[in-house]
Amino acid sequence: MFEAKLGQAGLLKKIIEAVKDLVTDAPFDCTETAMCLQAMDASHVALVSLKLENGIFEKYRCDRTISLGLSLSDLSKILKCAKNEDTCMIRYEDNESDSVTFTFEDPKCRKQDITLKLMDIDNEHLGIPDQKYACIIEMPSSEFQKTCRDIAMFSDSLSITATKSGVVFSGKGDNVSNTVTYTKNSTADEDDKDRVFIEVKETVNLNFSIKYMNHFTKATSLSERVRISLCNDVPVVIEYGIEEDGFLRFYLAPKIEDDKDME
Amino acid sequence: MFEAKLGQAGLLKKIIEAVKDLVTDAPFDCTETAMCLQAMDASHVALVSLKLENGIFEKYRCDRTISLGLSLSDLSKILKCAKNEDTCMIRYEDNESDSVTFTFEDPKCRKQDITLKLMDIDNEHLGIPDQKYACIIEMPSSEFQKTCRDIAMFSDSLSITATKSGVVFSGKGDNVSNTVTYTKNSTADEDDKDRVFIEVKETVNLNFSIKYMNHFTKATSLSERVRISLCNDVPVVIEYGIEEDGFLRFYLAPKIEDDKDME
Amino acid sequence: MFEAKLGQAGLLKKIIEAVKDLVTDAPFDCTETAMCLQAMDASHVALVSLKLENGIFEKYRCDRTISLGLSLSDLSKILKCAKNEDTCMIRYEDNESDSVTFTFEDPKCRKQDITLKLMDIDNEHLGIPDQKYACIIEMPSSEFQKTCRDIAMFSDSLSITATKSGVVFSGKGDNVSNTVTYTKNSTADEDDKDRVFIEVKETVNLNFSIKYMNHFTKATSLSERVRISLCNDVPVVIEYGIEEDGFLRFYLAPKIEDDKDME
Repeated sequence: MFEAKLGQAGLLKKIIEAVKDLVTDAPFDCTETAMCLQAMDASHVALVSLKLENGIFEKYRCDRTISLGLSLSDLSKILKCAKNEDTCMIRYEDNESDSVTFTFEDPKCRKQDITLKLMDIDNEHLGIPDQKYACIIEMPSSEFQKTCRDIAMFSDSLSITATKSGVVFSGKGDNVSNTVTYTKNSTADEDDKDRVFIEVKETVNLNFSIKYMNHFTKATSLSERVRISLCNDVPVVIEYGIEEDGFLRFYLAPKIEDDKDME
Repeated sequence: MFEAKLGQAGLLKKIIEAVKDLVTDAPFDCTETAMCLQAMDASHVALVSLKLENGIFEKYRCDRTISLGLSLSDLSKILKCAKNEDTCMIRYEDNESDSVTFTFEDPKCRKQDITLKLMDIDNEHLGIPDQKYACIIEMPSSEFQKTCRDIAMFSDSLSITATKSGVVFSGKGDNVSNTVTYTKNSTADEDDKDRVFIEVKETVNLNFSIKYMNHFTKATSLSERVRISLCNDVPVVIEYGIEEDGFLRFYLAPKIEDDKDME
Repeated sequence: MFEAKLGQAGLLKKIIEAVKDLVTDAPFDCTETAMCLQAMDASHVALVSLKLENGIFEKYRCDRTISLGLSLSDLSKILKCAKNEDTCMIRYEDNESDSVTFTFEDPKCRKQDITLKLMDIDNEHLGIPDQKYACIIEMPSSEFQKTCRDIAMFSDSLSITATKSGVVFSGKGDNVSNTVTYTKNSTADEDDKDRVFIEVKETVNLNFSIKYMNHFTKATSLSERVRISLCNDVPVVIEYGIEEDGFLRFYLAPKIEDDKDME
């Protein structure tokens, strides 16, 4: 039997909204310590990795490791039924093994049980190698979202160049070129929520599909800050923290040089 | 001559918005004591019944009983011209008998007169028999609206089961089943606006088209509370009160068992 | 070299949003004292005239008179990248003569440079003759916007009739006629922002295309007040003031009588 109760259904809503356009069906791997999801997007270009440690839940019980295959579009519709402040219980009984039940409850007198059939999902679990990154940017997630949206207006690609002095996001279209510069803000208070933190061991210059970046920034409401980990010729990691004990990470390989020439 | 003045045009706006997608053209029957509308929807499945007692109006004068046939889509556009707080005068002069004039006025210096041509409408006035109901539910109209919207996401039918202990709204789709339970809340204060009041003489279990229910809940802004009157094999009544002296009621026959089997 | 810096990018946003659906490409004429734009709409029916005196800018430098031809649809997208409170620098270097650069900066640490290619635009500058007007109406711009929107719901034409006692905006459709009356409000305080001010030397009665009027009222956010200058058989001027030193004016010829008869 698996049972996990979130204090606020709104958290799961935000997670699923951030993932559902990339991944249609996904396996939720439940263990004693955490609920995880790892999946490639449909075109096998981006990787999504979600981890919700059991500390995030008000109640958490997992008798044996299981993988719950769920349609994220159905799950998204189901979560639209929950008010953000409702509690959200996720329950899977071993003996009624073909469905999972979501129970939304509000403190007054309403209780909503929604049962969703499980799916069989081929779960090719990819090992993600440990990686040292040449550059780590930590900035307000809303700033990163805005920058990606701005670049996407004129360009298919997002170029990120990080140096000791700052980071430059840029894109180029037919008549318009767009460059957003964040200078390292060493004087700002550590607590300053607008602070842009840049740690550069080595200069990096990478190109990415802006379409995928815009997908990832749908997670903006999950966290006030985003962490971008970069290294030449290695997939970027875009990470949104979830409370103390969890994260939603997106991995995306850079465009190779040939792509750039063909643009 | 007929003349009726509402203190706030917003009230008529809300009424027409709630009815116009069900009924395209409708006869407003004006008598000395009230302005009424009764009409079947286009597919003759639902019945709409509106009553505005003369006490709702700031001024009311009706010299002789008349029926004003109006296009509700035109009327809806006309009311979009009114600000909610404008006064709204409805005037019909016997001698210029082919049109009715709506006058919106705001306290400052604007006055808007909109004249709408009358229509001939076949007015088959249906008698609505007095009915004793086995169950009456009175609940926040926004809760009922949300429940109908939630059920409609996965199902064509809304099942309502009311027992002494509470009421269950449910629907079932291909992969998802959805059940919303309100337990009788006997401890809640009578003044509690979130209170769900359930009076059950006899257990009822009825099935309705969720599409129509969603139409009816467009009246949600008219009243904080909705009253649902149920009896097996008899049309449900969904009633929104309008101030002290009026109501907007929707009647809908339950789906018969054969329909259920075919689903 | 031309350089002009606005304290708030939001001002330029509002201007371009108000003009871009009328005029697709436009020449910005920059002189020592002002930045101006004058252009006919695509169907050569309406004339747009914009003047931004150098006093509106925080910095302003124009070494020689130049005309910068810009795509307003590209410019509109570029301005969507600016936050309203960002500063906005417009810069054109004589030696890199095929583009203009917009720089948006926010007080924290972000700086965005967007470069837009210039266009060749045939600049047939029309002289606008001085004109005495028989009637001047000055009213809240939001009231004028609402009135135009209301009239447009039922009619293709807006009729304006101004007399000593007030002004009447009206339109007539198949089943509906709509008349909005503003009476001269002589008692209202001069500072009253809802005041409708009407100065009539001679009664005027003119008909205009409501479609164009609705285009013009997109400038509503630029100014709380609009000034309408009318004279029989002469184009109307709809003017929105921009701070102390500028304006956005729209000119539109009245419909001639034959048009009216054909309606």
